[in-house]
Amino acid sequence: MAKAKATRESKTLEKIEQLAFKALGSVRAGKNPAVEIPVRSLSNVHFNSEKGIIELGDRMAEREFFNTNMAKKFMQTFLVANACRTLVQEGKTISIRQLFYKTKHTMKGSSENTFETQQDSDPIIEDVEVAMEALREELHLFANRRGLIVGQLTVNDAGDQIDLRRMGRGGWGIPSICEDDSLKFVRCDAEYILVVEKQAIWHRLNEDRFWEKHKCILMTTEGQAARGARRMLQRMSGELKIPIYVLVDSDPWGLYIYSVLKRGSINLAYEGMRMAVPSVRYLGMSASDFQKFDLSSAVQIKLNKEDIARAKQIRGYEWFQEKRWQNEIDTLLANGFKMELDGLLTKETSFISDEYVPKKLRDKDWLV
Amino acid sequence: MAKAKATRESKTLEKIEQLAFKALGSVRAGKNPAVEIPVRSLSNVHFNSEKGIIELGDRMAEREFFNTNMAKKFMQTFLVANACRTLVQEGKTISIRQLFYKTKHTMKGSSENTFETQQDSDPIIEDVEVAMEALREELHLFANRRGLIVGQLTVNDAGDQIDLRRMGRGGWGIPSICEDDSLKFVRCDAEYILVVEKQAIWHRLNEDRFWEKHKCILMTTEGQAARGARRMLQRMSGELKIPIYVLVDSDPWGLYIYSVLKRGSINLAYEGMRMAVPSVRYLGMSASDFQKFDLSSAVQIKLNKEDIARAKQIRGYEWFQEKRWQNEIDTLLANGFKMELDGLLTKETSFISDEYVPKKLRDKDWLV
Repeated sequence: MAKAKATRESKTLEKIEQLAFKALGSVRAGKNPAVEIPVRSLSNVHFNSEKGIIELGDRMAEREFFNTNMAKKFMQTFLVANACRTLVQEGKTISIRQLFYKTKHTMKGSSENTFETQQDSDPIIEDVEVAMEALREELHLFANRRGLIVGQLTVNDAGDQIDLRRMGRGGWGIPSICEDDSLKFVRCDAEYILVVEKQAIWHRLNEDRFWEKHKCILMTTEGQAARGARRMLQRMSGELKIPIYVLVDSDPWGLYIYSVLKRGSINLAYEGMRMAVPSVRYLGMSASDFQKFDLSSAVQIKLNKEDIARAKQIRGYEWFQEKRWQNEIDTLLANGFKMELDGLLTKETSFISDEYVPKKLRDKDWLV
Repeated sequence: MAKAKATRESKTLEKIEQLAFKALGSVRAGKNPAVEIPVRSLSNVHFNSEKGIIELGDRMAEREFFNTNMAKKFMQTFLVANACRTLVQEGKTISIRQLFYKTKHTMKGSSENTFETQQDSDPIIEDVEVAMEALREELHLFANRRGLIVGQLTVNDAGDQIDLRRMGRGGWGIPSICEDDSLKFVRCDAEYILVVEKQAIWHRLNEDRFWEKHKCILMTTEGQAARGARRMLQRMSGELKIPIYVLVDSDPWGLYIYSVLKRGSINLAYEGMRMAVPSVRYLGMSASDFQKFDLSSAVQIKLNKEDIARAKQIRGYEWFQEKRWQNEIDTLLANGFKMELDGLLTKETSFISDEYVPKKLRDKDWLV
């Protein structure tokens, strides 16, 4: 454990070792060793309206060793846990694909592989995460990174001081792992955080030095937010204590990106507590912006069947039941068209930086 | 033209204006105005073995105004050229999607739109590029960016000095536009550039501080290289004058990524001169690495039909006719399996940083 610096890392190691000791104890007592794993199916997922996030219920399942249906998975669980232990001890982080390779081998005295494809190892990683109440990032695993950031913030990452005010047009790539043992916030002069879905809109705002003029932090998720970007946002929300505004396209996909940022996702409900940011505000694009900003018909993209079905589904979500949200989605459906933030360029190249976002903020024209 | 700082920007403006003046001249002379556009079809594409790149031949086509088949495209060509002129004058850059919106409107006195979808405007952008011998980036347009960079290099981008030795685990996002009026190389202490296809492999090498120990620049294209990454690489090749090594998976897709980096692409042959980097070297992964590095069978992924067909197609390319390349592809086919760099983690977490890349470089074990 020499290389495990931070306390949290020691805790992660402890959790992994407890898992092993418990199983060993059962073996020694002549019992059937088992691992308790919270059930991740939809039936065990609910919306916690007090916390404002989607979370996992408390139903558990046992994974036993002496059970022909479970024996292989039992072995795989310990194989993954053991590999994570090694990674934490080494102080190294790898992708979930790389973990698949790290744990794949032909079992001694047989022709059977521990894992055949990554589709076998990924669910086991999720099992280990929930069983230990540890994010995969704490187990030193990551999914692909995505997202860029610039603005009124200095961070320290892996020992490097990084001034996000001096990133040119490129921006700093948000790391796949944004935990506090590696990433620290050093100095913040920002009054708020602006999160935009699309890379090209982020580029527009960055080229216009929006973050400088308006004293903010400017981030793009480059589509659906990756885990690193979500953790970074949650940590900024808690530690910098400044508001966060989200800019997405006015379409069901944009609504869903916002929903996942704010409430967490249904499929990964177990990580909601560590990923969701219930305080984020929906700044736009709103279906009513078409009239409010006197946009031309060139911005309209007809809703297709899938859009309509998806919008109706989202309208049914428990956390979109407030009147203003129902109106928003009803307006989208009544309009019969969706709009992209890129469509604001039908006005002026910098309309979004000079008019649209400032007016929205001035008028407190957002949804929560 | 007040805002067009650099000489190149003035030249771009001049080219656009010449296009307009020429058409105007024809009108005044009572002739049919026309634009000459190099033919971009396959029949006008060839491999220039002297330069080592794929390029466009010199066949031209005329786009006339008084021609019912061409009138709309003629109008669109000038619409796009005019929007680019405005952008260069404003000193602003936008995405090709945003250009679509910027030029989309309903034509006066009709119900017809200038463009219906981006599929209409994208080819016109390519027309304008070839007609003016200017990259879209010089016309202030960009495609989505992709790619990260760290290492022994300091750059200045849009006025910010950026030390790529101090980027933590995040890296600097390679901008979508890497032209010399905005991006400058300030100080290079690197002996070579290592380009890796996969983000997670780049992360592995960065976490192991490979670029520090081995005095290099470490870049990932995050899959098929985006235009920004390719321009950056070509400029580094020309200005830093250090060798470039490419690390991709041992599969047809990896070979193709390398091929495009080195020779340019068949579809976008007209940009080869400004994008291709014929000096890059193929460091790996090689089909013979399986035996050379005593890898386990866990790294093998069976070639499927599509892989085999694609490998045979690539083996037929004029620029892969050297004996060593034919052997490489024959070995891949004879093995019957492909391999990923991630597979090197079946050995040790840092095998790639500690053993694989250093040995390859030491043994000069690369293909060109």
